[in-house]
Amino acid sequence: MKEKLEEALKKAIKKASRSPAPPKLAAAMDYAIFPGGARVRPQLSLAVSNACGLDNFDLSMASAVSVEMMHCASLVHDDLPAFDNAEVRRGKPTVHKAFDEPLAVLCGDSLIILAIQVLTANGLSAPERLGKLINVLTTSTGMPYGICSGQGWESEKTIDLSSYHKLKTASLFVAATKMGAISAGEDPEPWAELGQRIGEAFQVADDLKDFSDSQKSGKSNNRDRENERPNAVLKLGEQGAIKRLQDILAGAIASIPSCPGEVELIKIVRSQAERLTPVEPLQKTL
Amino acid sequence: MKEKLEEALKKAIKKASRSPAPPKLAAAMDYAIFPGGARVRPQLSLAVSNACGLDNFDLSMASAVSVEMMHCASLVHDDLPAFDNAEVRRGKPTVHKAFDEPLAVLCGDSLIILAIQVLTANGLSAPERLGKLINVLTTSTGMPYGICSGQGWESEKTIDLSSYHKLKTASLFVAATKMGAISAGEDPEPWAELGQRIGEAFQVADDLKDFSDSQKSGKSNNRDRENERPNAVLKLGEQGAIKRLQDILAGAIASIPSCPGEVELIKIVRSQAERLTPVEPLQKTL
Repeated sequence: MKEKLEEALKKAIKKASRSPAPPKLAAAMDYAIFPGGARVRPQLSLAVSNACGLDNFDLSMASAVSVEMMHCASLVHDDLPAFDNAEVRRGKPTVHKAFDEPLAVLCGDSLIILAIQVLTANGLSAPERLGKLINVLTTSTGMPYGICSGQGWESEKTIDLSSYHKLKTASLFVAATKMGAISAGEDPEPWAELGQRIGEAFQVADDLKDFSDSQKSGKSNNRDRENERPNAVLKLGEQGAIKRLQDILAGAIASIPSCPGEVELIKIVRSQAERLTPVEPLQKTL
Repeated sequence: MKEKLEEALKKAIKKASRSPAPPKLAAAMDYAIFPGGARVRPQLSLAVSNACGLDNFDLSMASAVSVEMMHCASLVHDDLPAFDNAEVRRGKPTVHKAFDEPLAVLCGDSLIILAIQVLTANGLSAPERLGKLINVLTTSTGMPYGICSGQGWESEKTIDLSSYHKLKTASLFVAATKMGAISAGEDPEPWAELGQRIGEAFQVADDLKDFSDSQKSGKSNNRDRENERPNAVLKLGEQGAIKRLQDILAGAIASIPSCPGEVELIKIVRSQAERLTPVEPLQKTL
């Protein structure tokens, strides 16, 4: 399935790069998507579609692709000098470093729109599902319930750790599970909690990894502290964060609705959970 | 109708600003939309809906609102330091000046997504039309046929004036006319040329206005020359550009399909044409 996902992503970028596309912007979009990270969100979405008895492969794949494109768009904009001013992403220069800032802003904008284009192109034959899918995807990325809202909280003086993470990270995981269900013609609501919990776990694991990296290197590479952003390790301590991650993942698995593909899905969530946890004591307990 | 449009825009921004929206980002979105410019695109869209026998007011209004939001989003991002580095827009500081750069980037992102959200919220009851509307709106704003593509050409070494304007400016006018038709249940294709021509006229009028302003002030305020961007006056001369504008507008009016609201629509296009033309000799000939 991973291979088919990469193919579908490639196809979408190729379509966006046709004449009269400006070559540099087209190249920046390709660069932002390939090679990918772990593709956790789209794979989760496809796993839920499968568990729901996948009956429209193209639409479920388009849902997965659209979630990944939104994720990559948010990374490109988050890395900009005005936000994280990050120089490296996935082991190579960030988009604004490899190209330039105007192209990075446009690349993010174009990927946001491309996410909707891919979904629409594959949903015109299933218009009832399409409306619901776009509704979920835009709610999870825009204002007031999505990624933009979460990112916007970084510009405020006070911020609530839990609701910040829900908006900035978990919202797109919720979109992934709900869209997986909708694209297969199922009710999305029973799947929201799974996305919510995996999203929370992902954020805590990220904070733990940052902490572990900074311990190993002996110097603080903790951009959250520098940028005064909320961070689970800073708030709960390392052990507290590990305990929290364990609780969240146990809850994620418990939340999976009874369905034909339940066992397979639990396996996928477990393997993602293992991948998520770079910290020694935690790996042993899973 | 203008008043109802303002109400609908207000309502959409208010909905995006509900809890848990971060207050500054919500304020930036409101600031980017109000007070508006001439609202040419949404009014054109509504005029076409009317001419097509408006049968779903909410959907036609949502189409108009979504076009205006995409337009405002593109202005906010175009004004960023990485692009035009503009300090003033519509007589007040640009979004990144009044707020800051992170909020301006997020404001643009959020408005792009809000455009789709508004459309979706009002189209779930008419799913066949909704898919077509979103298809047109995203095609006219993304890659390779929309605003992002046009803006992306500014990063290339060579650029074709006509295709650049088609992408960057005319594409959203085409969306306005086509979406006006689709939201009223009509075939959009006969309406594409009207949008195309008004869009072209708008860009040429803009170039003439820049030229006229710089003549009056006695100093070059021509950012296109500074930024090495294509400009009709720079390419064709003032008289050449005026002639081109006249030809385009005559063609726009001639292209209006035969329909019940035809006469009213011609009136609206004529009045927009007059508003478009700040240059004395041209006003006399219309």
